[in-house]
Amino acid sequence: MRTQVAIIGGGPAGLLLSHLLHLQGIDSVVLESRDRGYVERRQRAGMLEQGTTDVLRETGAGERLDREGLVHHGLELRFDGAGHRVPLTDLTGRTVTVYAQTEIVKDLIAKRLEDGGDVRFETEVVELDASAPSVTFRGADGVTRTLDCDYIAGCDGFHGVSRPTVPGLRTFSREYPFAWLGVLADVPPSTDELIYANHERGFALHSLRSPEVSRLYLQVAPDEDIAAWSDARIWDELAARFATDDGWKLREGPITDKSITPMRSFVAEPMRHDRLFLAGDAAHIVPPTGAKGLNLAVSDVIVLARALTERYANGSETLLDGYSDACLRRVWRAEHFSYWMTTLLHVDPAADAFDRRLQQSHLAYVASSEAAKTSLAENYVGLPIA
Amino acid sequence: MRTQVAIIGGGPAGLLLSHLLHLQGIDSVVLESRDRGYVERRQRAGMLEQGTTDVLRETGAGERLDREGLVHHGLELRFDGAGHRVPLTDLTGRTVTVYAQTEIVKDLIAKRLEDGGDVRFETEVVELDASAPSVTFRGADGVTRTLDCDYIAGCDGFHGVSRPTVPGLRTFSREYPFAWLGVLADVPPSTDELIYANHERGFALHSLRSPEVSRLYLQVAPDEDIAAWSDARIWDELAARFATDDGWKLREGPITDKSITPMRSFVAEPMRHDRLFLAGDAAHIVPPTGAKGLNLAVSDVIVLARALTERYANGSETLLDGYSDACLRRVWRAEHFSYWMTTLLHVDPAADAFDRRLQQSHLAYVASSEAAKTSLAENYVGLPIA
Repeated sequence: MRTQVAIIGGGPAGLLLSHLLHLQGIDSVVLESRDRGYVERRQRAGMLEQGTTDVLRETGAGERLDREGLVHHGLELRFDGAGHRVPLTDLTGRTVTVYAQTEIVKDLIAKRLEDGGDVRFETEVVELDASAPSVTFRGADGVTRTLDCDYIAGCDGFHGVSRPTVPGLRTFSREYPFAWLGVLADVPPSTDELIYANHERGFALHSLRSPEVSRLYLQVAPDEDIAAWSDARIWDELAARFATDDGWKLREGPITDKSITPMRSFVAEPMRHDRLFLAGDAAHIVPPTGAKGLNLAVSDVIVLARALTERYANGSETLLDGYSDACLRRVWRAEHFSYWMTTLLHVDPAADAFDRRLQQSHLAYVASSEAAKTSLAENYVGLPIA
Repeated sequence: MRTQVAIIGGGPAGLLLSHLLHLQGIDSVVLESRDRGYVERRQRAGMLEQGTTDVLRETGAGERLDREGLVHHGLELRFDGAGHRVPLTDLTGRTVTVYAQTEIVKDLIAKRLEDGGDVRFETEVVELDASAPSVTFRGADGVTRTLDCDYIAGCDGFHGVSRPTVPGLRTFSREYPFAWLGVLADVPPSTDELIYANHERGFALHSLRSPEVSRLYLQVAPDEDIAAWSDARIWDELAARFATDDGWKLREGPITDKSITPMRSFVAEPMRHDRLFLAGDAAHIVPPTGAKGLNLAVSDVIVLARALTERYANGSETLLDGYSDACLRRVWRAEHFSYWMTTLLHVDPAADAFDRRLQQSHLAYVASSEAAKTSLAENYVGLPIA
């Protein structure tokens, strides 16, 4: 078997890369270890930067996004019993869109199959040779085959097989002393825009999935036992953390999904080894506070698709050689922003009274300064893709 | 003996308060433990916010400041071998002025004495009664007297006698894992504007005192032995930390003063106890990176003078009752900004590779984003006094 680009991983990064390459006449095969149903169901992020919606739209993969995505023009910071709006669009001219990652995956799978793309589910990578280059895999039929290619894209996430094959990677990481307890609830959101709340009991986030489904998060301990959180306790805790002096009300409804997500920062450098290019979670993880994970995966593959396009158009490897540095600049910006949002809003159990007062002053400043709000906003909506 | 306001401490806070009260027809006595020569010689900060120069100018204490002060419109952030200007005035419409604290002290002593003010040097406070209220002191003549008053202003610095008399103060503090080795050198500054340099060997700051005198600082360990720093070693280290890819040159000259300053953040709450009001370093300390210490002392006494003026004009204690909260909002803003500038620019010996990459991304972002530069600038030139 032979293709131009072997893509390991059928999440949003791998699927979008395959789609972008196809539009440039470049062949690829997507190898995904899970079955299609699993991939189309797994709950992940849901806040898209304008750069992300732009690329989906411009490449013909944004039809349902345009119909169902909820465009947002601001967010709310809530602390000390009061809300403070950050008018994202007024400050930056850009918007963000609520549209779940799982929906993007469904759209891209449908698009690739419609375009005759080769997307293989239940396909386990057995060996990866970055210099041959080739990928050996065992398909859903149990048969082991070798896929020869020009390049390999490792889009298989944090726990994938690509990154561990790279010798001499330098890694950077940070564990946070808290996690997120996230719930999906069948109740119309109590807010039109996301609410990021800092409370002495911990951080809370009111997000949404649709006009009928609320997505809510609570800061909890990293080793929290989910069994200790009855629905009633979750609603009580959310109500306490979102409470305002003017009696804002949180709508309650049936909780349909409940999970705990650890918070981690991670970066591997460089993002290239020989003919293997890492993209998305395979190379970096951010805590979810800044909503950057999915958007970073998208910007990685935009940069990679551009570089491969140049390579196949005129033989130049200049952009491929610059891939890692170009991505890492944006990755570290997002890592810093995510760390900043996380520490601004969460309660660190190790924080002393001085730290807490600094945090309160920082929050009050961000809410009151046009410059500080603009800085938050321009990072949140996404800085230009290099 | 009797006065309206007993002021403990003849540094810039106490002297300016006495001056401002005098202009409102309110009597005060300033009690300073050191002799006049000492007070007029001690080297302290030298970067004035516009709010500070405005009050000196508007109250007739700015004549020499106008002549000798060096108005600055920007500063430079230097890292990775290149400089990045933060155009303070373009971004905020405000300026800062280089004029040493010791010069302000000389000007204010002269002004108070010219106006018939009662400023007593070598005067030790023996007892302070915040409810009587009264201050018992031993004067330069060795005689102990009691000064009855309506209010007491504790402007006697971090090591002064005022703060320890307050029961139940809540204090907040942070020690930093580094100190500043500062030198004065008889050499024209190598730069027109201050240079804040981040280098893997540590932070360095190029400041100035006059067109002929440079003020230079190096991050060193908190327990550094100053004897280990020959003039030659200091110049070599400064040259290494300020080095740029385009060969910027540091001018060297005779070092006339050399000292090590620890870095500390400290706040005491509240800033009032009964009839005693704390102001300046008596209530709070900031690390010097943001140049906020002297400016905070000035804004404290502006707020206090306003409150006492209202009290004597119409008997209302509303502003006095609001003094602590009004000051603390500004104090914590300055504490946060100083902490932010300090951690942005210094090398923390405990930082891991992740922290260092975050710092590099943060510096690159501040240097490239108009919003981030504006945020730095508005804090540096000073937010409006409450």
